[in-house]
Amino acid sequence: MQPVCLVIGAGAGIGSTVAKRFAGEGYHAVLCRRTDEEGLRRSVENIESEGGSASGFLLNAVVAGSIEERVADVEANIGPIEVVVYNLGAQIGDRALMDTSYKMFERGWRMATFGLFRTAASVCPPMERRGKGTILVTASTAAMRGNAGQHSHAAAMAGRRMLCQTLNAEYGAKGIHVVHIIVDGMVDAPDTLGKMLGPEAFRKLREERGLERDGLILPSAIADTYYHLAHQHRSAWTHEVDLRAFSDLPWWNR
Amino acid sequence: MQPVCLVIGAGAGIGSTVAKRFAGEGYHAVLCRRTDEEGLRRSVENIESEGGSASGFLLNAVVAGSIEERVADVEANIGPIEVVVYNLGAQIGDRALMDTSYKMFERGWRMATFGLFRTAASVCPPMERRGKGTILVTASTAAMRGNAGQHSHAAAMAGRRMLCQTLNAEYGAKGIHVVHIIVDGMVDAPDTLGKMLGPEAFRKLREERGLERDGLILPSAIADTYYHLAHQHRSAWTHEVDLRAFSDLPWWNR
Amino acid sequence: MQPVCLVIGAGAGIGSTVAKRFAGEGYHAVLCRRTDEEGLRRSVENIESEGGSASGFLLNAVVAGSIEERVADVEANIGPIEVVVYNLGAQIGDRALMDTSYKMFERGWRMATFGLFRTAASVCPPMERRGKGTILVTASTAAMRGNAGQHSHAAAMAGRRMLCQTLNAEYGAKGIHVVHIIVDGMVDAPDTLGKMLGPEAFRKLREERGLERDGLILPSAIADTYYHLAHQHRSAWTHEVDLRAFSDLPWWNR
Amino acid sequence: MQPVCLVIGAGAGIGSTVAKRFAGEGYHAVLCRRTDEEGLRRSVENIESEGGSASGFLLNAVVAGSIEERVADVEANIGPIEVVVYNLGAQIGDRALMDTSYKMFERGWRMATFGLFRTAASVCPPMERRGKGTILVTASTAAMRGNAGQHSHAAAMAGRRMLCQTLNAEYGAKGIHVVHIIVDGMVDAPDTLGKMLGPEAFRKLREERGLERDGLILPSAIADTYYHLAHQHRSAWTHEVDLRAFSDLPWWNR
Repeated sequence: MQPVCLVIGAGAGIGSTVAKRFAGEGYHAVLCRRTDEEGLRRSVENIESEGGSASGFLLNAVVAGSIEERVADVEANIGPIEVVVYNLGAQIGDRALMDTSYKMFERGWRMATFGLFRTAASVCPPMERRGKGTILVTASTAAMRGNAGQHSHAAAMAGRRMLCQTLNAEYGAKGIHVVHIIVDGMVDAPDTLGKMLGPEAFRKLREERGLERDGLILPSAIADTYYHLAHQHRSAWTHEVDLRAFSDLPWWNR
Repeated sequence: MQPVCLVIGAGAGIGSTVAKRFAGEGYHAVLCRRTDEEGLRRSVENIESEGGSASGFLLNAVVAGSIEERVADVEANIGPIEVVVYNLGAQIGDRALMDTSYKMFERGWRMATFGLFRTAASVCPPMERRGKGTILVTASTAAMRGNAGQHSHAAAMAGRRMLCQTLNAEYGAKGIHVVHIIVDGMVDAPDTLGKMLGPEAFRKLREERGLERDGLILPSAIADTYYHLAHQHRSAWTHEVDLRAFSDLPWWNR
Repeated sequence: MQPVCLVIGAGAGIGSTVAKRFAGEGYHAVLCRRTDEEGLRRSVENIESEGGSASGFLLNAVVAGSIEERVADVEANIGPIEVVVYNLGAQIGDRALMDTSYKMFERGWRMATFGLFRTAASVCPPMERRGKGTILVTASTAAMRGNAGQHSHAAAMAGRRMLCQTLNAEYGAKGIHVVHIIVDGMVDAPDTLGKMLGPEAFRKLREERGLERDGLILPSAIADTYYHLAHQHRSAWTHEVDLRAFSDLPWWNR
Repeated sequence: MQPVCLVIGAGAGIGSTVAKRFAGEGYHAVLCRRTDEEGLRRSVENIESEGGSASGFLLNAVVAGSIEERVADVEANIGPIEVVVYNLGAQIGDRALMDTSYKMFERGWRMATFGLFRTAASVCPPMERRGKGTILVTASTAAMRGNAGQHSHAAAMAGRRMLCQTLNAEYGAKGIHVVHIIVDGMVDAPDTLGKMLGPEAFRKLREERGLERDGLILPSAIADTYYHLAHQHRSAWTHEVDLRAFSDLPWWNR
């Protein structure tokens, strides 16, 4: 059976691009996203049109049992999950404390922190039995420092970072490689940045900073590093790494 | 009206000792803890017996509305909350991932992260109106690094640290001082360490490391620093600080 | 004999204000600065005029033997050094790499890093014999992150931070308290900020941000925290702490 | 002309292995090390025997002008330096403060901090003219936290980390990629670990933790990540990354 790369949060940016990269190297990619069945179908077809193997599923990660059932189904019917890419964020834009409802705050945690915990609880047992596995976690600047208006996002992403550290401390020596990857800047992704900005502002931003200027992080470049990380020799594993455009200052300078 | 120091998590260790310290300096201390009405009464009486002013309430912080109603009641009927000490932890001992239930993981977040968010959402509006206020947050080593078995605790405490940073970024310039205090070691506290170890082991530990050896952090010493932090001149506020016994190595050396 | 508080870098800002604070609490303050004998004399007289006890010495910390001899002389002829305040910085303003000479880069290290090493090597033996002592190190934002143009300053201050950690790891349990205090913002100090900006710009800045606005860190407020830190009970020592004006964002948000 | 990969600190472990990896991908490798002309010759021949192109030079990095002249000579006579690997450490084992001479402390800084500064001052101007270049800096645990006995090492390595941040802040947008790579564990390297332990202890350690157990970091695995980092698309550059054996806990857990 083909090894599986399971992507939770397979939007048109990082998620489906990483899926495609792993599929191009012989993995069966399983793409999961909450909405946009049409976009999901296109991502799967895009992989298949280049000779890759992929499946797509709608998955609402905050629903009880959703991740657990998907993992069990993939393990039973598709193949062993060798790589999980946990790519769900919890960015809701800047909101003052009094404009951040309890529901929003909790939803951030359910998406970014609890979702990863449930994913780990689902995939670690089979990975441990096989003595290997990789969990790549897309993180963001908010994991490293809070900022005004980021109450929900920062709390959720920082909780997730420490969860990665606890998972690594328990499972590293058992062969499970957990990597926390800080994507520290704007990604050239229509499904996230594009939707946040709207089409016109996104087009303008791409002209000013993206395209040949390389000032927006390319999902394909991220995918290169994800693939490298998943294939590091186990004597030299990375646990934390950052990524940003050459023309951007790191979070500690902004 | 007397200024109020509201302590959420007023066990026999840090919480009630800090309450007593503030009461000794003229605050009305409001002590809240989840259980042990008898212990709560003793803490209040202990403050009053030395001439201080205090009230005690049972409060289950994970119950919806509990913190919100307590804050509203204190503001309406006791006095302006000038200082909040958020002293609830989420330590449940080391537990492997597969022994950490979803419920435990969520409870850690409800106690340590969401409880602080709700507290801040309740006290920041009146503090902002008055142009001043202090929120002292007892943190722990787990806020800084994950460790095997600390899945719930580390995720919750790290989320809380970043929440402190977002609160500070929004409210610092409005006069609200948020301090994240890392208590990096064992505290000489019967209600937490004592209960975790059991009476015999706790007695032994105190003999070996505590008492005149000063190897267990004294709640009264913590209270001195809490009081200092709450009274720093606003031109020189501390946002993050650590505390540990002289004979202990810091978390980054352990 | 009176206990001594030795201040290395006793300019008109943090250094002499901290000296005065300790003198006001019964220490004999020894003020050392490189230049401005007249200013040094004024600082000593200012302390004495309020009933304090102080001595002043010119000391060029980069000269071989200078710190060593001063420490030996104070220990032999004035009193036991209980507190050292290492307050020498290495800020030379922003300079591009190609405008930073080897000499400047080395000088930054000699002032900020090697000077503290030599100080520690001089005071730790007598402090260890007495079983107690405190070393308060004034640090800055540059100890925590590099910034364009800060090549010399950041390398020197970061080296110093880790030196504080190594000193603490070796000497904490022997009763020597090493504290690394990040002064994260502009200090209302004529001898440093005032000289860097020039009198007119400094006057304007004070009007806009300082004075009653409290947007410039007051040396006297810093001195309060220094004094508190030097008198923490040894069961609850701080090793790292930050200080900034309430209206300033921390370095991680700038 | 072939692009050059200049390795400063080309011992038999990380340095010469990285050199070989780059040579295998078409770079001319320039290997510099302080001593062991015979070992240097073997490293060069080893590269050439597999079809690679390399030169070797003895270089004492603490001697004035040594790095500067080597860089100028390579640029003039061999080819454009596209990649620099700064691989000099300053580990001298654990030494108490009183056993760390001023000379040792200074030497650590000269090797680990000032040497990188001089290297950057030498290679950044030609790299900036060409609009591209990569500086890979081998770092260690001591860059992140001090430890008892690491006075010289930690101060030097931490200064170097912040120097990497200042270089990146100035030169990133100009196309120079600076990466700080924390090698957080023991490397299976005869010239460093082997010499520190002695042959017998090194042999024993390799049997217990190395070889097929993969508990010692393999230089070839490090070289894979170095090569990947040097070829990241400029829209997604890494600035800080860590590497350790799967079976080792990270520094924050030790």
